Amino acid sequence: DYSKLDNIVIGVCGGDGIGPTITNEAHRVIEYLLKDEAAKGKVSFRVIDGLTIENRAAAGKAIPDDVLAELKKCHVILKGPTTTPRAGDPWPNIESANVAMRKELDLFANVRPVKVPEKGIDWTFFRENTEGAYAIGSSGVNVDDDLAFDFTVTTTQGTERIARLAYEYARKNHKDRVSIITKANVVKTTDGKFLKLCQKIGTEYPEITTDDWYIDITTAKLIDEKRRRDFKVFVLPNLYGDIITDEAAEFQGGVGTAGSANIGKRYSMFEAIHGSAPRMVQEGRAQYADPCSMLRAAVLLLSHIGYQQQADKLERALDICMYEEKKLTITGRDTGATCSDFGEYVMQTIQKL
Amino acid sequence: DYSKLDNIVIGVCGGDGIGPTITNEAHRVIEYLLKDEAAKGKVSFRVIDGLTIENRAAAGKAIPDDVLAELKKCHVILKGPTTTPRAGDPWPNIESANVAMRKELDLFANVRPVKVPEKGIDWTFFRENTEGAYAIGSSGVNVDDDLAFDFTVTTTQGTERIARLAYEYARKNHKDRVSIITKANVVKTTDGKFLKLCQKIGTEYPEITTDDWYIDITTAKLIDEKRRRDFKVFVLPNLYGDIITDEAAEFQGGVGTAGSANIGKRYSMFEAIHGSAPRMVQEGRAQYADPCSMLRAAVLLLSHIGYQQQADKLERALDICMYEEKKLTITGRDTGATCSDFGEYVMQTIQKL
Ligand SMILES: CC(C)[C@H](C(=O)O)[C@@H](O)C(=O)O
Ligand SMILES: CC(C)[C@H](C(=O)O)[C@@H](O)C(=O)O
Repeated sequence: DYSKLDNIVIGVCGGDGIGPTITNEAHRVIEYLLKDEAAKGKVSFRVIDGLTIENRAAAGKAIPDDVLAELKKCHVILKGPTTTPRAGDPWPNIESANVAMRKELDLFANVRPVKVPEKGIDWTFFRENTEGAYAIGSSGVNVDDDLAFDFTVTTTQGTERIARLAYEYARKNHKDRVSIITKANVVKTTDGKFLKLCQKIGTEYPEITTDDWYIDITTAKLIDEKRRRDFKVFVLPNLYGDIITDEAAEFQGGVGTAGSANIGKRYSMFEAIHGSAPRMVQEGRAQYADPCSMLRAAVLLLSHIGYQQQADKLERALDICMYEEKKLTITGRDTGATCSDFGEYVMQTIQKL
Repeated sequence: DYSKLDNIVIGVCGGDGIGPTITNEAHRVIEYLLKDEAAKGKVSFRVIDGLTIENRAAAGKAIPDDVLAELKKCHVILKGPTTTPRAGDPWPNIESANVAMRKELDLFANVRPVKVPEKGIDWTFFRENTEGAYAIGSSGVNVDDDLAFDFTVTTTQGTERIARLAYEYARKNHKDRVSIITKANVVKTTDGKFLKLCQKIGTEYPEITTDDWYIDITTAKLIDEKRRRDFKVFVLPNLYGDIITDEAAEFQGGVGTAGSANIGKRYSMFEAIHGSAPRMVQEGRAQYADPCSMLRAAVLLLSHIGYQQQADKLERALDICMYEEKKLTITGRDTGATCSDFGEYVMQTIQKL
């Protein structure tokens, strides 16, 4: 309960690629919305610059120790996308910084809302965020030249806490259905366990209908204009959550429009669901990056720490800027609208509300 | 090379649920199209009834021994959907019959075409079909009450053969792009290996551009009406292939419209990409099942064994029945059109071509 804290520390971590550019706009807007609270000393900001791929490469780990120590001084973190090294990159093969942060800060729930009112879409995804294919994703085994293994992990505790969060959310928000998504017909041990445990938690919420689907057919159902309206709350293992939230965000305008809350007992982290877009930076187009995802992340952050009014205001302003006046919504070379033009437009819109 | 065989044996295996109903229509149409060849003794049919969930449950294995022996007497198999036991079902927890057949007959490539000419969609998916999350999908480990594991497997040989098939297909069909889909940024060992090996094979095809994407963003790109036209040929690990082909089929009218070729060196099997729809059977609606997926599978089968003219004829008839004359296309209680009405309509259409 954040209202009991004397001072909520908001960490701001720009990340790589277009990260600093888009994070900057979200930071500016949050600062503006919380300026009275900051003046009263109820919130403060802590800018953390060190989470860059260069620093991570030099330290040889996904989060350098000094950066992790900084992050742990915050209560909530606004984080720009970070670059995950891949084959052929000049960086050593270190783990994704997102993935590492989720594990280090035990951010067990990745909550991703997707709303498209005119299409009848109002979904909230509860993605398990520390286990599954991600648990030891960087520690597979090359048995010999031919054979390689990776592991998927499901724990009882890890599953029960994400399931409970999803059902509690459904109860509080009067959603009458929770859908459990797995591939338990094939990945029988871990997904089977996930499904069974979620169903068990579901029995504690008799007012809520539980159904379950396999991940393959679910990706089809999301496209079906009639059937997709039935979905409300999803609970799903890490990898399926990763996959399907990108698909879902597309209906809303793309991954560039979707924010994500990474929730733990002690810390929380708010981010875009997309990557750092290194190609945009290489091509000199970083200033045209679309900050909507980070601004949506800011909405989730404000709401999470109890500033619901400010969250609502920002959400309303974003809805106006993104959907109601289409002119400026698309940043990019064509329109000439930059990332900071869009941020400015959101600020002005807030002031008029 | 099937033209060298004296007699091509086509196995017909109805499966469970709506399986026998829809397989029957496909069988009828293939028999009609190959009646001259059958008369000359160049092809023959072998109906295999035993692959039912009841028999599998009684035998305690995914494919009873006598059925497997029967299957191995065929060169190619037309297979209806089979029921995969799941928690709460009255059956023991045996492996999916599809998955078992793919492994037992070493059907290493699952080839799934999705075509929607009016949307500019012309995709062919090359899904690795025996490894990945499916390799030992029924043999995960419950370490203790809290912790469960499953395994993902990638082999050099398994990856190279699917990659080569995809590139060979691209070359033969003048497709200038192959897209490798993985989650190599997280599932580093196995997906990393898959990506690297596919890229290596790709260098042997200099006229073809290779690109690679992560599975999460790929599910979004398929929806993007502009970007999805760039995709042509996909090569991907088993689980991602499973997931994304259901999504892709939705653009074509749903999983009910998509056939799938399971190709091995010695055997091949052709099936629908959807399940056995036990709910339809329970509700007494099996006769309204849509046979399109099995008829599309029949097209793939005919083409595979070298009867390209017959394959083209059936494909053309299906295009007419499904898209050009919309009236009868939707089987179901509303229209009153049954599975066999639709089969009959396809037959009549073929006769007019
Ligand atoms: C960048 C990547 C490691 C990350 C993930 O797979 O979780 C991203 O796709 C996401 O969804 O936040
Ligand atoms: C039924 C199921 C085991 C199967 C799979 O996962 O491969 C199906 O979804 C498919 O795509 O053929």
